[in-house]
Amino acid sequence: MARDTIYDRDLDRVPANHQPLTPLLYLDRAARVFPDQVAVVHGTLRRSYRELYARARRLASALAARGLDRGDTVAALLANTPEMIECHYGVPMTGAVLNTLNTRLDADAIRFCLEHGEAKVLITDREFARTAAAALEGLRAKPFVIDVDDPDYDGPGERLGETDYEAFLATGDAEYDWPLPGDEWDAITLNYTSGTTGDPKGVVYHHRGAALLALGNVITGGLGQHPVYLWTLPMFHCNGWCFPWTLSIVAGTHVCLRQVRAEAMYRLMAEHGVTHLCGAPIVMQMLINAPDSERRDLPRRVAFFTAAAPPPEAVLAGMSEAGFEVTHLYGLTESYGPAVVNAWHADWDALAADHRAARKARQGVRYPVLEALDVRDPETLEPVPADGATIGEVMMRGNVVMRGYLKNPAATQAAFKGGWFRTGDLGVKHPDGYVQLKDRSKDIIISGGENISSIEVEDALFKHPAVAAAAVVAKPDAKWGETPCAFVELKAGATPTADELIQWCRGRLASYKLPRHVVFGELPKTSTGKVQKYLLRARARQDGA
Amino acid sequence: MARDTIYDRDLDRVPANHQPLTPLLYLDRAARVFPDQVAVVHGTLRRSYRELYARARRLASALAARGLDRGDTVAALLANTPEMIECHYGVPMTGAVLNTLNTRLDADAIRFCLEHGEAKVLITDREFARTAAAALEGLRAKPFVIDVDDPDYDGPGERLGETDYEAFLATGDAEYDWPLPGDEWDAITLNYTSGTTGDPKGVVYHHRGAALLALGNVITGGLGQHPVYLWTLPMFHCNGWCFPWTLSIVAGTHVCLRQVRAEAMYRLMAEHGVTHLCGAPIVMQMLINAPDSERRDLPRRVAFFTAAAPPPEAVLAGMSEAGFEVTHLYGLTESYGPAVVNAWHADWDALAADHRAARKARQGVRYPVLEALDVRDPETLEPVPADGATIGEVMMRGNVVMRGYLKNPAATQAAFKGGWFRTGDLGVKHPDGYVQLKDRSKDIIISGGENISSIEVEDALFKHPAVAAAAVVAKPDAKWGETPCAFVELKAGATPTADELIQWCRGRLASYKLPRHVVFGELPKTSTGKVQKYLLRARARQDGA
Repeated sequence: MARDTIYDRDLDRVPANHQPLTPLLYLDRAARVFPDQVAVVHGTLRRSYRELYARARRLASALAARGLDRGDTVAALLANTPEMIECHYGVPMTGAVLNTLNTRLDADAIRFCLEHGEAKVLITDREFARTAAAALEGLRAKPFVIDVDDPDYDGPGERLGETDYEAFLATGDAEYDWPLPGDEWDAITLNYTSGTTGDPKGVVYHHRGAALLALGNVITGGLGQHPVYLWTLPMFHCNGWCFPWTLSIVAGTHVCLRQVRAEAMYRLMAEHGVTHLCGAPIVMQMLINAPDSERRDLPRRVAFFTAAAPPPEAVLAGMSEAGFEVTHLYGLTESYGPAVVNAWHADWDALAADHRAARKARQGVRYPVLEALDVRDPETLEPVPADGATIGEVMMRGNVVMRGYLKNPAATQAAFKGGWFRTGDLGVKHPDGYVQLKDRSKDIIISGGENISSIEVEDALFKHPAVAAAAVVAKPDAKWGETPCAFVELKAGATPTADELIQWCRGRLASYKLPRHVVFGELPKTSTGKVQKYLLRARARQDGA
Repeated sequence: MARDTIYDRDLDRVPANHQPLTPLLYLDRAARVFPDQVAVVHGTLRRSYRELYARARRLASALAARGLDRGDTVAALLANTPEMIECHYGVPMTGAVLNTLNTRLDADAIRFCLEHGEAKVLITDREFARTAAAALEGLRAKPFVIDVDDPDYDGPGERLGETDYEAFLATGDAEYDWPLPGDEWDAITLNYTSGTTGDPKGVVYHHRGAALLALGNVITGGLGQHPVYLWTLPMFHCNGWCFPWTLSIVAGTHVCLRQVRAEAMYRLMAEHGVTHLCGAPIVMQMLINAPDSERRDLPRRVAFFTAAAPPPEAVLAGMSEAGFEVTHLYGLTESYGPAVVNAWHADWDALAADHRAARKARQGVRYPVLEALDVRDPETLEPVPADGATIGEVMMRGNVVMRGYLKNPAATQAAFKGGWFRTGDLGVKHPDGYVQLKDRSKDIIISGGENISSIEVEDALFKHPAVAAAAVVAKPDAKWGETPCAFVELKAGATPTADELIQWCRGRLASYKLPRHVVFGELPKTSTGKVQKYLLRARARQDGA
């Protein structure tokens, strides 16, 4: 189509000027430039970048010697330990694809992932041996199993496999000359979404996207040189938002953490001078609700990146007081984790606390490495007006969007229909272009023909001083079709009535948006702290709540 | 070749997940996210990112309306003014290629570039009208000429063209919906190297490389959000090391500067709180040799990125005292400007000043966005041992290496021979992997069969307190083949003899490396501050120096 110009002649791609983008080279660089820099801290263990790289190459070489090849899958059922970081490099250094498994899944779900992803190898921590053993049972093609026996873990759990991780590594070559991917489009990892309905979908990442998102993290997160990063976010979750690769760009230190507990977090932050961490809102709750006995003075202000739900005003205030600077990110498994950032304007600091929180609650704008972000009508694909009110579907387009769903062309095509990745999230575009989520498509409540954002109702409830957490879902209603049903977790000692909460909302919401039912109790949450609304929806449908 | 795997099926590139990498989208983002941030300062002029983007789109739209198309060349003969920044966006937004011209070239050289690059449009500043007019004369295909009449310039110079830049912009559309490049491999700019022999070569950059080097600059330079950047480095030099694009990633402020003078630099740094600037060693000399009357207190420490020659100890000390933090970069026109950085280790701060300077003098390690850097035997391509002594050719490989030389396949093939970009620079690899230049291939002196690094001799001379600058070249010698001949620029008032300098070197160099001749006088330099050794070589050959 394009006409031939002087620039189209004799200026071709050759090895000297065209190499595949890959995050694996970031580790090679860190190990050469800062070999003695501490790469990994875990309990009393310290490993330098020289050692981390050598171990990753050993892993790659040992896997290659076992016949692992381009496009083979290696599954990992691991906590946030050094082995998990090594897997993020060592596995793709063979051309294979790393499938990190959610350690909270049950055996059936794990078995599904192993089977669907056709894992040839499973690397599994002793802590999850029971689930792993049950998952392996009944699996048609058994993977080669490697046990991780973490000295920092002294709980129950058998070794299941043919070999132990350290013994396996010892068979590898620390100087292994690993091949670059043949193409930057080659798969690097596989992440199963914890779908609330139907089978999990296998999201495929490629080297190009992982390399770019990692650069985007450094810039968006303002990491600087040698950051110290605390592993509160599970690495099985969107490859830890690509931070296993991100840190190599700036030769940062990974501080590992098996169990997300306030005491351990404060201790590690104080001991190692942690500069950055990521986590769901539940992690912020832990930090600010920790008793004084578990708190420690932090040597510096700590950057906290959160996603999944907008940080409420009270939480922001509590975090600031506790010494944290919160940045609100947004993304999905399909976008390598965060691809959207609530880019902060310095002059917003002068706003009143509630207005600041309202600004902070917006999901924001695209990462510099995401090419497009918009809110559009899901049918016509027309952009919604930037009025902060008209709801449309949040859509993305760019190099940090997944290749697609493994062995699921129908789902891939549906997700990419019309040239955009359909997030399934509903939102608005504010006059300044910032995007704000209003709901998941399936979370919107349609009452008497009016759309009600469950998030808006939750926000109103959350402002009540007695409310610790709130989730609002649709309850079938003979007259209105659906009405809002609120599930509320109260703070210790608080005893408001359902009616009191409904009255509280009356001054804050249009009357058709008021919850008609209020149910008290603990909210069911996923391992990453997301409220499991599908369970609440089932309850709202069934009982007379 | 690669076998078909489950990851090779139904996971193809589509618009939702694959977009061309291009630095142009960084401006789109900055204008949307930080529309009111000051993008450009020039004299009393201030322009926001909203305005900069609108003007770039006007330029693109006006050029497109004149028929400019993909692969057409637009030449720019401009000072470091706002128009030059706009050209870096507006021209490639049409698919055309920006050819920035060195304003110090003579008319013949400019005419050669216009002819060879087949420029369809020339945008030229009134200051350079005389040269431009002479260059246009005798040109077979006359480009459409647009004059820039900068209110900040009141010197001589006619308008030459059919229209004036502002009038031309007024015909454009500020909302122009510019097309993304069809392919990230498409050319974005054309930079003629100021070759010392033969015709200049036209180095072609592509969107992919420019986008990546800009990300690399943000990370390597530690730019942070909203840096304030002073334009001391000419934008015609490797597109100002890609900083016109780099700043948009972090919504920084461009502080323009027509003339590099100490008084203006200090004034602008103080007035605008400049955080970063780039420049050749000569700019550092200007800053530290400025009289007190021209100096200003700087509101903060300023990051100074230098390249072209290693910063000597005395200069580093002077810069530090004057409030600057110097980072040493290295690159070539062929690598988009800097692709190598003297990555600093915090513990080197504790070294004695001379050892610190010796560390700082090394060119260093690859940018995170350059895939490979090595020193190799130019014949066998074997890596040299990392012994800090064995000389080889510095070679690069990666995505921030040019596409090649325009209409010069022979030169392109020679540059990329063996799968590496041959820099033509000779250097060593230290035990820690850091690369250090020893010479250009053509600058090495071969005396009695021994290689002598001219840089090493220059270093020895430079340490003499009376020496302001020194350049050493080969002088033909009947007995030895060649001997080192030193050209020395003295500090004001200093009067050492040639013999005194040779004796000074005796304690510092092997005797065969001692300069046999010393010539005093000002050194000839290019517009970017590089010593023109080819002129000195000619003098060394001719006169009895």
